[in-house]
Amino acid sequence: MHADDAGPAPERPRRGPYRRLPVEQRREQLIAVALELFGTRPPEEVSLDDVAVAAGASRPLVYRYFAGGKQQLYEAALRSAAVELTRRFVEPASGSPTERLAQVLDRYFGFVAEHDAGYGALLRGGSVVETERTSAIVDDVRRAAFRHVMKHLGVREPGPRLALLVRSWISVVEGSALSWLDEGRQIPQDELRDWLVDQFTAMFAVTALHDRQAAEVLSAMLDREVEGSPAARLAARLGPELTS
Amino acid sequence: MHADDAGPAPERPRRGPYRRLPVEQRREQLIAVALELFGTRPPEEVSLDDVAVAAGASRPLVYRYFAGGKQQLYEAALRSAAVELTRRFVEPASGSPTERLAQVLDRYFGFVAEHDAGYGALLRGGSVVETERTSAIVDDVRRAAFRHVMKHLGVREPGPRLALLVRSWISVVEGSALSWLDEGRQIPQDELRDWLVDQFTAMFAVTALHDRQAAEVLSAMLDREVEGSPAARLAARLGPELTS
Repeated sequence: MHADDAGPAPERPRRGPYRRLPVEQRREQLIAVALELFGTRPPEEVSLDDVAVAAGASRPLVYRYFAGGKQQLYEAALRSAAVELTRRFVEPASGSPTERLAQVLDRYFGFVAEHDAGYGALLRGGSVVETERTSAIVDDVRRAAFRHVMKHLGVREPGPRLALLVRSWISVVEGSALSWLDEGRQIPQDELRDWLVDQFTAMFAVTALHDRQAAEVLSAMLDREVEGSPAARLAARLGPELTS
Repeated sequence: MHADDAGPAPERPRRGPYRRLPVEQRREQLIAVALELFGTRPPEEVSLDDVAVAAGASRPLVYRYFAGGKQQLYEAALRSAAVELTRRFVEPASGSPTERLAQVLDRYFGFVAEHDAGYGALLRGGSVVETERTSAIVDDVRRAAFRHVMKHLGVREPGPRLALLVRSWISVVEGSALSWLDEGRQIPQDELRDWLVDQFTAMFAVTALHDRQAAEVLSAMLDREVEGSPAARLAARLGPELTS
């Protein structure tokens, strides 16, 4: 099928700086450009004109692809970012459970750093471009993170306490990413990652004291840890810290 | 000053079921009624007519007090709820630090249970009544919680790691309140409170491993704990849980 047959009509040939691109490629390019702009400035401060200029396209062309204007483009960019982020949750193939978790967190913080302003604005909420639809996209990402952690732990049917633990830890990750951005990344990314891995283990241990399922899953996880892994190091240090 | 001289003109005397109230009292009554309605149904499903009927007032009267309509009434109700919630953060006068924390959490969950639907809708985000202003009110409450915890710990100038810890724990509290509501309060409130107190101590201990200020503050806090307090009990059990 020729590009002319599908989707919005491609722009007519024109003089000037605008480049002609096939439909899907243009759509993806506009989304990529929008994502980059939304990553550097809060959504309020990005106009469709900015997107058009940065994409080397005209404003009417952007409207031909996104008739709903900035809101539609924002949602498309958000959806594309959500797909990319979710892809990063896939468990790495090697390492102990906490080592794998550390790798996933590295990928996550890479994403956060790339999408800085937009990610912050999105999670802070109250933005004019935020709707039930954008909240649903963000929730989908949280649910994907939840499923990946449960898969990672080998849990098919989490009870309410194990579910609460994992959801809580995910909100700690999200909240620390936000604090990290807000405070100009004062804490080095590696340290933040290690802190989050340790929080995972410690929060898990607390939950294990309250819940049999969590205790079993934690015990199975610790069995897969190796000497010198984050969980093993934490276990050796946490007890003395609390009783000193 | 007579009520007639101030604020919106009070309703004219009328027959029918409407009661005449002084201006401030009427305003407060409308806010209280709105808060109750927003507590039982998501904001989308509450109309100004519902508020008028529940308040025993006419719709025009409600508009006379809240010319901005439902949005203005919602914000006023939210502000009033924020004041009430913030009041509950004030540290109780007796008990060890973790015992006091448990008391504050009891008050917080009392608030959450009272404002169920509205609180859930607010924290979930994406509601049509959510704006930059409502997000700012919610953030103010979070900041107040942060200040109270720091005061509680005797910390005047938290470094980035101690600040991250306290902010993270507050997001765990908020997230668990939301899960608790979403899942029909499956976990008993007392258990959830104890779990959150233990998470505070454990997350603090992890942070103490990464940060000198947190280590000093935690050590001072543990010195104020008494035998049998939540922190003391946790310390005795957490080490073995991680090394078993």
